[in-house]
Amino acid sequence: MSYYSPSIEKLIESFEKLPSIGNKTAVRLAFYMLNASKEETDSFIKSIQDAKNNLKLCSKCYNISDNDPCEICSNAQRDQSKICVVEDVKDVVAIEKIHEYKGLYHVLHGSISPMDGIGPDDIKIKELLSRLMDGSVKEVILATNPKVEGEATAMYISKLIKPMGIKATRLAHGIPVGGDLEYTDEFTLGKAFEGRTEL
Amino acid sequence: MSYYSPSIEKLIESFEKLPSIGNKTAVRLAFYMLNASKEETDSFIKSIQDAKNNLKLCSKCYNISDNDPCEICSNAQRDQSKICVVEDVKDVVAIEKIHEYKGLYHVLHGSISPMDGIGPDDIKIKELLSRLMDGSVKEVILATNPKVEGEATAMYISKLIKPMGIKATRLAHGIPVGGDLEYTDEFTLGKAFEGRTEL
Repeated sequence: MSYYSPSIEKLIESFEKLPSIGNKTAVRLAFYMLNASKEETDSFIKSIQDAKNNLKLCSKCYNISDNDPCEICSNAQRDQSKICVVEDVKDVVAIEKIHEYKGLYHVLHGSISPMDGIGPDDIKIKELLSRLMDGSVKEVILATNPKVEGEATAMYISKLIKPMGIKATRLAHGIPVGGDLEYTDEFTLGKAFEGRTEL
Repeated sequence: MSYYSPSIEKLIESFEKLPSIGNKTAVRLAFYMLNASKEETDSFIKSIQDAKNNLKLCSKCYNISDNDPCEICSNAQRDQSKICVVEDVKDVVAIEKIHEYKGLYHVLHGSISPMDGIGPDDIKIKELLSRLMDGSVKEVILATNPKVEGEATAMYISKLIKPMGIKATRLAHGIPVGGDLEYTDEFTLGKAFEGRTEL
């Protein structure tokens, strides 16, 4: 049963549909919107509409961007001989934030997951291979997630590109910086041992 | 520095402005919106616009409603001799949920707070008094919050209405049902002792 007026109830329900928003937060957000100025709600609505209207996938790397090709693909300063393959657009941002990597990206938009019915043709693997055809790319860094699906996807791609004479690399596993040996899970610790480096 | 395309960045910022939404949640919400269908985002936007356009203050009780007078004020079944005075619209819902109270409401939209420069004229006290003029109301339940400002507001109103021959009551203080004596603060425990009832 609803205790609010229909329009408030609808607004609360709208917010509740969003991920990680429970009922109490939805009520708070709905009343915030109600009490906000017209300019504020208009600019909120416009930012949603603009994002929906302006953003597209870059036709080269499939990153989401206002421009096609995206800012990274159209930046001649970036190392055109390296492509970092990630599962998701947010992974691009995560890697950009470390300011280490200056090459290009390729967003797969998922990972191979037979359990969920996602095969190699459902993610942007063909598109990656066609980018590699002209021989300018020397290294593909497979930065898919360190989970079963991500590992399988990385293996799958590496088997396709190695015969092309392109180096396929994978991000290192190990103990997180500032982490605690005691609280590191056994798989990570195992990988950290395997990948130990000489001082 | 921004790592997202301008339209995404704007959308993330829009969500970040909302109360209790931090950066990580804002990013999650922004990408949820981007991936949502057009129908979904349109209905989200419409619910905000409808709420802003349709909702008004009830001219009797100052509750927020799609109609004026609101559903409660226009319900002849409700006990017209009782008015429950609350600070906020959300308090009306909190009380409606207990299904105990069948009288009317009056929303003050705040409480007297000299520290914040809010005097009796800044909240809907005059409007309450004019509702009491015709003598049909026999009891005013002062359900303002049990804080300094709420208590002061309740005292202020009770002093104005007692001379009119109207009963002014205040909600009981005590230990919450299911609460723990050990964890009850001393003020509440003191009030619970004061208000003890005979078995």
